[in-house]
Parts: sequence; structure tokens; C-alpha cells
Amino acid sequence: MGERWALGVDLGGTKLEVARVDGDGQVLDALRMATDVDGGPASVEADIARMSRALWERADSPPVGIGVGIAGQIDGQRGQVRFAPNLGWREVPLREDLERLLRVRAVVTNDVRAITWGERLHGAGRGIDDLVCLYVGTGIGGGVVSAGRLLEGCTNTAAELGHIIIDLNGPPCTCGNRGCFEALAGGWAIARQAQEMARNDPSAGERMLFLAGGAVGKITAETVARAAASGDPFVTGLLENVSRALIAGCVSLVNAFNPCRLILGGGVIDGLPDLIDKVREGVKRNGLPAATAGLEVVRGLLGANAGAVGAGSLAMEVFG
Amino acid sequence: MGERWALGVDLGGTKLEVARVDGDGQVLDALRMATDVDGGPASVEADIARMSRALWERADSPPVGIGVGIAGQIDGQRGQVRFAPNLGWREVPLREDLERLLRVRAVVTNDVRAITWGERLHGAGRGIDDLVCLYVGTGIGGGVVSAGRLLEGCTNTAAELGHIIIDLNGPPCTCGNRGCFEALAGGWAIARQAQEMARNDPSAGERMLFLAGGAVGKITAETVARAAASGDPFVTGLLENVSRALIAGCVSLVNAFNPCRLILGGGVIDGLPDLIDKVREGVKRNGLPAATAGLEVVRGLLGANAGAVGAGSLAMEVFG
Repeated sequence: MGERWALGVDLGGTKLEVARVDGDGQVLDALRMATDVDGGPASVEADIARMSRALWERADSPPVGIGVGIAGQIDGQRGQVRFAPNLGWREVPLREDLERLLRVRAVVTNDVRAITWGERLHGAGRGIDDLVCLYVGTGIGGGVVSAGRLLEGCTNTAAELGHIIIDLNGPPCTCGNRGCFEALAGGWAIARQAQEMARNDPSAGERMLFLAGGAVGKITAETVARAAASGDPFVTGLLENVSRALIAGCVSLVNAFNPCRLILGGGVIDGLPDLIDKVREGVKRNGLPAATAGLEVVRGLLGANAGAVGAGSLAMEVFG
Repeated sequence: MGERWALGVDLGGTKLEVARVDGDGQVLDALRMATDVDGGPASVEADIARMSRALWERADSPPVGIGVGIAGQIDGQRGQVRFAPNLGWREVPLREDLERLLRVRAVVTNDVRAITWGERLHGAGRGIDDLVCLYVGTGIGGGVVSAGRLLEGCTNTAAELGHIIIDLNGPPCTCGNRGCFEALAGGWAIARQAQEMARNDPSAGERMLFLAGGAVGKITAETVARAAASGDPFVTGLLENVSRALIAGCVSLVNAFNPCRLILGGGVIDGLPDLIDKVREGVKRNGLPAATAGLEVVRGLLGANAGAVGAGSLAMEVFG
């Protein structure tokens, strides 16, 4: 009999990853492909099943179960995807479908909640009972652990941290409201600001435009990060706005949740290495002293596989 | 042998109330006086002890214990007041002192947390496992129950909801930061805005000035409420700002905590009866649909004695 392991799936709007994860949160093996969004749930589920079987064949024991993290709102009890905007899915019985296809037990959760739990079990939140995990990618997602328990809320959508309002007069958000955290500091908002800058002042946007292959519409948060890394002085003001917004949002979270650890991760945090120090300083300066007394602001440790590790670790915990 | 009851104490910067509270959260008897802030902890503790004994003498059984709710940061384990800004107290061993003075067991907590727990046991949050209680008085305080448990956080200061940031370019807050929820919607902020208005435009401020006895510096949130009640058209814009700020803050809380019930209370909510409908509407309109699906926005039910009822109910639960 071989080692105990679980399948961990990170199901995003661009990338689908399936990993073989052990009880220490280590990735033993992994497969990755572009998500076939156009194919709809049936096609994506078939891809997950095929990748899972391939990993299973390369192992010397069956998985204890499969965990899936997906960007969207989940009905945790039924393992049903209520709404996954990036995939265009509504009311997909993902747990049921995967259990039928793979004949192993499945658990489905929100992607950043999976990461949060993974960070707590094996990463930057090990042994910490009160933590907030903030993932700043294209949007901003979050997970909160309080007294050792993941907050779920009334309808399992607690910790939509990208949609706390930090500027009630601020720019519109994709959610229909204004001034949300992610409308100021998320990857899409950084891209929007950079594109505006390049349109309004072509000379200031020159470097970014070059890095984006000459098309303003192709400037992304990654372009901004690369321009910053190459010393482009014109992105300084933009990054100043982003770091002010990140500090304001993090102060709100620290005052509201009083975590021992604030764990930051995601493409924007990885791409702009100075940000985490600025947030650490800013939160200590602007947060309530009582709320920051026990606080550490740290980088997530699960790395590029965070989603799959988190989902697999959850499955190990539930079924292992 | 008589009924089981507890002493409940609401200890604020202006008012000190001690009540005899039964197992249903009913006030059987109560005493109230101005808080002797200048006398310091020893004098206030002596007042609490004297009022407690007077209530005890009028009862036909001893109390099961005493609960104290106090505006400030509490070390819950030791029952020590870390910092109570309105009283100017730092590191006061309140639980120990009261147990020594009264020879009954004592529990000390933050005032809005006491109210939150009281609302959950006997008020607007009965039977609800996920709720947010927001008290809008001079400042803004809060309490959060998630999965049936009061959030405490890493250093027992979770739910400082008056200090989430809703306008990162907003006015200064007493905490040293800018744009906090209470710096836009708390009673002191409403008073500040009204005073500014009366100073800048005496004709617009005429009604408020009259109600405040002619001194701009005496205009309070209550003056604004009375001016509004008397149909003063000049306070409309000010109240519009307050309701926008309240909606923004409540949307943040609903998206972050996903409560089943948002309970509003405190002087500002009581003084401006239209506010609660506006918040209810605004939160439904601007909150994430998934986060508002199960939400009710309601008024607190514990009324004027909320602090003492909450603290007494906590003592009944802990010691009863």
C-alpha cells in the first residue's frame, strides 16, 4: 500500500491544474492545461477526470478524494457551483458530477478559501488560529480564519474581501457598485489605470506600450510590474495609488477581523515585490494599535500551485 | 428561594447604569447615574458596587454574577480594561476589583459586544447564528457573530467596525487615520459637519443654531435629528451624506461577513428614523447579490437599556 494522497484541482477562467497532494501539502505530481471555457461544464469536468486518472495511474495507491477550488460562489453543503463569473457557470452540480465520473469522494470550495486553508495547514499560516488571506490577482479574493474556523457566513459567501468599499466616491466596479477594494487595487483596475495613462499621455506610457507590443488595450497589471522592474519612472504615481488603496483595504480588514497574520498573495503581490513592505508599514501606521499589536503581514508560501495545494489539502483533511 | 438574576452594568463615558436582569433578558430593576470620570477607576468601581448592593437588597435572592460592558478594549481572559478612551482608563483590573468589592463572579467585555450578545439571546438576533450588530452613537461600534460564536480576533479587538475605511481620501478620524466609517457617519462626525455648515452659512444653520441654544459648538447629532424632525430643509444634504456613508459601510460589512441579519442601533439610528429604510434599500442595491440573498436589515430590540441587558445576559449565560 502506497502513500495517502488526494487530488487537488485549481479551476480558473484561464488555467486548469490538477495535482497529486500529500498530507504535508507537497505536490507529488501535477498536470495543467488551458480551461476549455467554451466547452462548458461537461467538457471541463471531462478534462478534470482525464487528468485525474492520468495522475492516479502514475501513483501506486488510489486518492482519498478530490478537492476543487473554483473562483465563484459555492453551495458548500451540496458542492454545487452557484455562480462562477469567469467560467460563465451557474448552478453546476460539480461535486456530484465528479463523484460520478471518478468514483471518489469530492469536496468543492471557493478558490481563495482553499488557498487560505492550505496556507493555514502547510504555509504562512501554520498553527495560526486567526488569519486573513488576501489574494490580489485580476480581482481580489479572500479567506478568513477566526478561532481556527473558516468563516462561511449566512449563505457561504463570507470574505468577499475584494468588495469592501474603500472609496465611496471611487471608480465603478464590475459588481455594479463603486469604490470597491478590487476596483482600486485589483489587477484589472491597475490595467485600466495604466491604459488610461497611456492614452492620455503617450510619452509617459511609452515604455508600457512597448512592453505590451504597441497596443494600449494589451497593457495589463503584469505590464505595469515589468515597467516598474525596468525602472520606468512614469509608473511611480500609479503604483503609489495602488499601494495607498492596498493599505486602506488592509487596514479595514485588520480593524474588522483583528488577525494575528495577514497573508498576501496573488499575481499583483508577486509582480510588485515592494508592495508587501509598504502594506506592512502602512497597516502598522494606520491600523488601530490594539488591532495591530499581534499582527504580522507576510507573503503566502504555497506559491504557484497554491490553489491546487489548498484544494488537495482540504480533501486530505476531509477524507484522509 | 427567589428568581435567578444577574447584575448588568453599562459603563460609558457619560452614564453608568446597573440593572437587575433575568434569564429572559428582562430588566427587573435598574439604577443610573452620571459616570464620575474625574474620580477615576476607584470611584467608579465604588459607585458600581453601591448601586449593585442597592439592587441586591431589593431582590429576594443573590445575583449569579455581574457582567460589565464598557466602551474600550478588554483583555477578555483577565477581565482587564486595556484602554477605555472615554474614561481615560488604562490597564484597570476591573473584574478582579469588582469580584473583591462585591464577592460575586464578574465578566467584563466591550459594550457593543455585550449588546450584540444580548440582541442574539433576547432581541433582534434571536436564533440567528450569523449576524452583525452595528451601533451608531457618538462613535461607531460593532459586534459580529459567526456560526454562533462572537468573533474575538487575535488580541480580542475584532469588529472595530467604526474603523473600516470607506473613503480613503476622507476626513480625519479620532484614531489618527482618514476616512473611517465613524469619521463620516458617527455622531461626532455628523456634529462636525453640521457645525461647519452653520459656520459657513449662518442662514442655512439658523434652525440648528436655535435648537442648540445659539452656540455653534453645541450643535450635536441630536440637534441635526431634531432639525430634521422639524422639517428643516437645510439638513437634507447633510443627511444624504450620512446615509450614503452608512450604506457604503454596511455594504462592506455585508460583503465581508455575509450575515443573515444586520442589526442597527444607537442614538443616530434612533434619532433619524428614515435611516434604517435607506440602509436596507442601499445595501440590497449595492451589496453582492450572493451576500444579500439571505439578509435582513433590522433595528435592535433591546432599547435604551441595551448595554446593561447585554452585560447582564452575558453574566446569566456564563454564571447562571
